[in-house]
Amino acid sequence: MLQALFHAFGDPPVEFALWNGERVRTDTEPVATMHIPDRATLVRLCRDPDMQFGELYSDGKIQVEGDLGRLIEVLYQGAAHPGRNSISALRKLSHWLHRRPNNSLLGSRENIHHHYDLGNQFYSLWLGDTMAYTCAYFPTPETPLDQAQLAKMEHVCRKVQLRPGQHVVEAGCGWGSLALYMARHHGVKVTAFNISREQIAFARERAKAEGLDHSVEFVEDDYRNIRGSFDAFVSVGMLEHVGVENYPGLGEIIRSCLQPEGLGLIHTIGRNYWKPMHRWIDRRIFPGANPPSLKQMMDIFEQAGFSVLDVENIRLHYAKTLDWWWQLYEQSRDKVAKMFDENFVRMWRLYLAGSRAAFTTGEMQLFQVVFSGSTNNRIPMTREHLYRP
Amino acid sequence: MLQALFHAFGDPPVEFALWNGERVRTDTEPVATMHIPDRATLVRLCRDPDMQFGELYSDGKIQVEGDLGRLIEVLYQGAAHPGRNSISALRKLSHWLHRRPNNSLLGSRENIHHHYDLGNQFYSLWLGDTMAYTCAYFPTPETPLDQAQLAKMEHVCRKVQLRPGQHVVEAGCGWGSLALYMARHHGVKVTAFNISREQIAFARERAKAEGLDHSVEFVEDDYRNIRGSFDAFVSVGMLEHVGVENYPGLGEIIRSCLQPEGLGLIHTIGRNYWKPMHRWIDRRIFPGANPPSLKQMMDIFEQAGFSVLDVENIRLHYAKTLDWWWQLYEQSRDKVAKMFDENFVRMWRLYLAGSRAAFTTGEMQLFQVVFSGSTNNRIPMTREHLYRP
Repeated sequence: MLQALFHAFGDPPVEFALWNGERVRTDTEPVATMHIPDRATLVRLCRDPDMQFGELYSDGKIQVEGDLGRLIEVLYQGAAHPGRNSISALRKLSHWLHRRPNNSLLGSRENIHHHYDLGNQFYSLWLGDTMAYTCAYFPTPETPLDQAQLAKMEHVCRKVQLRPGQHVVEAGCGWGSLALYMARHHGVKVTAFNISREQIAFARERAKAEGLDHSVEFVEDDYRNIRGSFDAFVSVGMLEHVGVENYPGLGEIIRSCLQPEGLGLIHTIGRNYWKPMHRWIDRRIFPGANPPSLKQMMDIFEQAGFSVLDVENIRLHYAKTLDWWWQLYEQSRDKVAKMFDENFVRMWRLYLAGSRAAFTTGEMQLFQVVFSGSTNNRIPMTREHLYRP
Repeated sequence: MLQALFHAFGDPPVEFALWNGERVRTDTEPVATMHIPDRATLVRLCRDPDMQFGELYSDGKIQVEGDLGRLIEVLYQGAAHPGRNSISALRKLSHWLHRRPNNSLLGSRENIHHHYDLGNQFYSLWLGDTMAYTCAYFPTPETPLDQAQLAKMEHVCRKVQLRPGQHVVEAGCGWGSLALYMARHHGVKVTAFNISREQIAFARERAKAEGLDHSVEFVEDDYRNIRGSFDAFVSVGMLEHVGVENYPGLGEIIRSCLQPEGLGLIHTIGRNYWKPMHRWIDRRIFPGANPPSLKQMMDIFEQAGFSVLDVENIRLHYAKTLDWWWQLYEQSRDKVAKMFDENFVRMWRLYLAGSRAAFTTGEMQLFQVVFSGSTNNRIPMTREHLYRP
């Protein structure tokens, strides 16, 4: 059974320590050892490794000795192995059979509530001061997390060329850090949408505390209900939850609210080519999420008459961001255990370590796409302005 | 008949001066007047305006008084009008019925010969000193053409991060200016492919004259015959001629010759969404050419295991490049007339003016796409290095 498992993951450098003292591994020096306490656990793992590794690790049934981050990296690398193609087809089918509620107006609310309403206090333990829960941008390798988050916000503002007095719409504003940054540093008005009640409440308090509640309006509503006319459109970390089938609709919404000379930016986790979301992540962490390929993203722009001006893939910045989050998370693990329980501590650790591995191995990408109406000739001629000190 | 024509082009601000002295126009001040000498010309124009305007203008049957560039711009703008959707469907069908030889190994040679082997002397009249026949890059609006062509080459070299001693493969090298620039300014070896006999002969002479024939090898062969292992792949202005059906094959070629940590760049005319090539251009100027949408371009990268790192759309730089070419061309119109004839002078003027209009109106895009193998972690973290003085 273990042989089949090894084969399915391209013979990764991993060791299994079984209940009877037996050790099973490949010739390569293992990066970690998985302790399997009994036959039932082994059977569960082998029957459906994608789903059960997460379940068994979270339950504390499987213990990992060694480098959890590296372990997940070698599993990702092995799973990308050509031998897995036939398994991928089965998985695709299985994904559809197990799929979660869709991203209708109601489905989206449920999906978003599942993840983002775990409690602002929980997220504040490891996201840093900005509470920005998206990929940061590290101008230098030494930039600390909070500064890198602010650098990301500045990068986004420059990409849409904000000017004082403009009115910006933000779709999916998280805890409001970007909206507040835009108002504070670029003198713009912002209308920011989010369907997470807890995040919106937090963002409104922040706006009041910073005296920015006259410049920034936080609206608890779906992006599909955006109305009005804006100088710029930004969306950082929402597209993952939109659903590919809704991309032409999103494009239509943007078209209807973005002025002819306005610039738009979508920042999203993506893929090199379409794959279903990892089933365990879909079940336990991010129901309904699906990072698109660039090809899929074009469905937003093509029919709505937009021109793609700039795409930047900052995948390795997300690996670095997750390094930080995971480290801060481990520093707060006792607090997390008190808020939830030990199973949650492990589950969330696996999610952070696994996400980091997805970016270091090239399983996931981070795209920032800048676009504008196809007839707009007041677009920036070069991108040099993004890199001025 | 003219009413139907006006309607089909969204009632453009154009005036018709008919043989009997009659003038037909819309209320808007016309940008140009088309002189129609007889009823037969009018019938030909109205029956198939896309094809016949080019034919009749080249033959000197239709004369244009006023701004030819603006005339084509307003026709493009009008043709993008929603009322034209039903006509577009017919045109798509018509395109297939009239389609040119395909881009097989032999078909490509014929197509490329048609355009690029018109004579190096002809192209040297208006391309400037670099003989670069692709979009230039203007760091400032005042940069002159030759400098802007060199700036484009430097931009490309920086995007693939050339280092001395590396070996670069170039697919579709034109008259060799980029290959020679890379060797001269970045100390790399270059193997450059092209199936245009005249261009290759010219490029080889240039290499010898510059003493670079030991660093740059010009190969008269198809990109499909590229073999070897290279540190970087560049292709500037070839993809337009590859044909969408050959994109996965191109990706496979690149995958097989690009080292795991190598960077690749494709520079190509593109579109916001797929459309057949303008029929007159396909017939008279560029047989077999077809600028892809970004979505279509993904067929190169997705299956070959590449990650798209950077996309830059420099459409307005091509409008500026064409401004220069057209101006230089008009300065040499008497020489062109001697080389060919007056019909050719008009045909080529229409092509240059029309291409410029395609870029100013957003009908065409210019994409530079940087990519690398999906597991390469030695990719540039930021693009700041592109903009250092």
